[in-house]
Amino acid sequence: MKIGIFFCLKVWNMNAKIAIQGIKGSFHHQVAQEYYYQNVEVDECLSFEELIDSLMSGKSDQAVMAIENSIAGPIIPNYALIDKNNLHIIGEHYLDIHQNFMALKGQKIEDILEVHSHPMALLQCMEFLKKYPNIKLVEDKDTAETARRIHQNQLKGIAAIASKTASEMYDLVILAPEIQTINNNMTRFVIINKADNFVSKNEINRASIKFELDHKRGSLAAVLNVMSDCKLNLTKIQSLPKIETPWKYSFFVDVTFEKYEDYAKAKALLTIMAEYFKVLGEYKNTKP
Amino acid sequence: MKIGIFFCLKVWNMNAKIAIQGIKGSFHHQVAQEYYYQNVEVDECLSFEELIDSLMSGKSDQAVMAIENSIAGPIIPNYALIDKNNLHIIGEHYLDIHQNFMALKGQKIEDILEVHSHPMALLQCMEFLKKYPNIKLVEDKDTAETARRIHQNQLKGIAAIASKTASEMYDLVILAPEIQTINNNMTRFVIINKADNFVSKNEINRASIKFELDHKRGSLAAVLNVMSDCKLNLTKIQSLPKIETPWKYSFFVDVTFEKYEDYAKAKALLTIMAEYFKVLGEYKNTKP
Repeated sequence: MKIGIFFCLKVWNMNAKIAIQGIKGSFHHQVAQEYYYQNVEVDECLSFEELIDSLMSGKSDQAVMAIENSIAGPIIPNYALIDKNNLHIIGEHYLDIHQNFMALKGQKIEDILEVHSHPMALLQCMEFLKKYPNIKLVEDKDTAETARRIHQNQLKGIAAIASKTASEMYDLVILAPEIQTINNNMTRFVIINKADNFVSKNEINRASIKFELDHKRGSLAAVLNVMSDCKLNLTKIQSLPKIETPWKYSFFVDVTFEKYEDYAKAKALLTIMAEYFKVLGEYKNTKP
Repeated sequence: MKIGIFFCLKVWNMNAKIAIQGIKGSFHHQVAQEYYYQNVEVDECLSFEELIDSLMSGKSDQAVMAIENSIAGPIIPNYALIDKNNLHIIGEHYLDIHQNFMALKGQKIEDILEVHSHPMALLQCMEFLKKYPNIKLVEDKDTAETARRIHQNQLKGIAAIASKTASEMYDLVILAPEIQTINNNMTRFVIINKADNFVSKNEINRASIKFELDHKRGSLAAVLNVMSDCKLNLTKIQSLPKIETPWKYSFFVDVTFEKYEDYAKAKALLTIMAEYFKVLGEYKNTKP
């Protein structure tokens, strides 16, 4: 069924444009290539806000968005962006992240004065970077964009942390490969869409939901009891502050299940129990 | 009792040094001044890792660390830093964040080409910044440090987003005051210490705990039921990935309570129920 839907998108609109965060050679680009197809047309966005604007304005048809990393945790503002714009998660894709330390050809690691990369990438490589206390860390918008800038401006003394693909694409030499602190560095990306009519009920076994509860003690426990009774497995939970109401919380929860009917029953109960209940997406679980 | 302990720290060691993230004029500096005293000596750290190093190495005696913002949510890597280094939360402090758009004297808003600030500050002012699409957003390490750099290098065309104090300290003019999107923009800071012997049991009514559960369905609900039975109020919950074990989760939970005995009972039960249980801190709730 997945193939069917996937096929539809490709056949109906071979010119579909996919918004990605970053430029070609970025991890988002790699996910778009793996989820859709190798030559998928992408709209390169230099922030997640830009990515949402691209989707909302119709400049792109769908978007690929990092949502959670196995080391750094959830990318919380992205949940808020999906929620605020009433977008729908229609799929997910997992990518094993390999980070590499790269610079202009001819440069040695001793020549490097600064390393520029996305804060998340710097965080993922902290143990490696601690070995070089003289190299200044500079936060940047995108991993691949830094690689491209080093190439375009022939910047000496500056290194990028990015994918192997980026080093090939922008003609840089890898001075240290695989510098991520933890080897199991997996990032979960979601595929987002303006409408929710992209996924068939038959293949849905995962959902992302949001709810708000009154402040009675035990109200969250009661909701989780219902989920458990309905045979839902909780794969993530986080309380997030309610904008405009300091220190009131919403809950963002991911669940997996075997039968859609079980989930539908839980949904019906939660709609009654919670002060507010919303589905952010129902899709196929592809956790490796 | 709070005053007693507070007093002890001041009397025993008037030269106590407090690690802050950022430089003088930063929000962390303001918190240190409000929590300790106006002229408290600070160690200016340009990253949270540096702040932890300052504390671990004994360069500073305690540290002030932002942990949660009412708009952007928890600063998740900071939980991991406290946990990994077995540090203790011994207090908390809330600060209402006011952001201001500032530049060199004589500059007008039309002259500004780039605005530099901490990613969190940029995020908090996104609605204002969207009104000026031609101003490039540049992520920087610290709000006050950018203000200082603009002053020191007399940088024209560049604005900072920082506190009113920073504009006064570094002789900049505020071109747009109070540019935070949401007026209720509160940040919660924690006071961290190497030992946990700083807080008297009599004043403890809040705790930050961490636990891991087996993957049986309903195990989180069971734990929350126990907490509710022990009259604990849950003020925050988040699942975080277990480093080195992709997609296995720990739970970071904050609770408040009236009687320490109730909390002690819950602790005893959780120690038995959870696969792993740890207290990150027991301290006084100061939520305004």
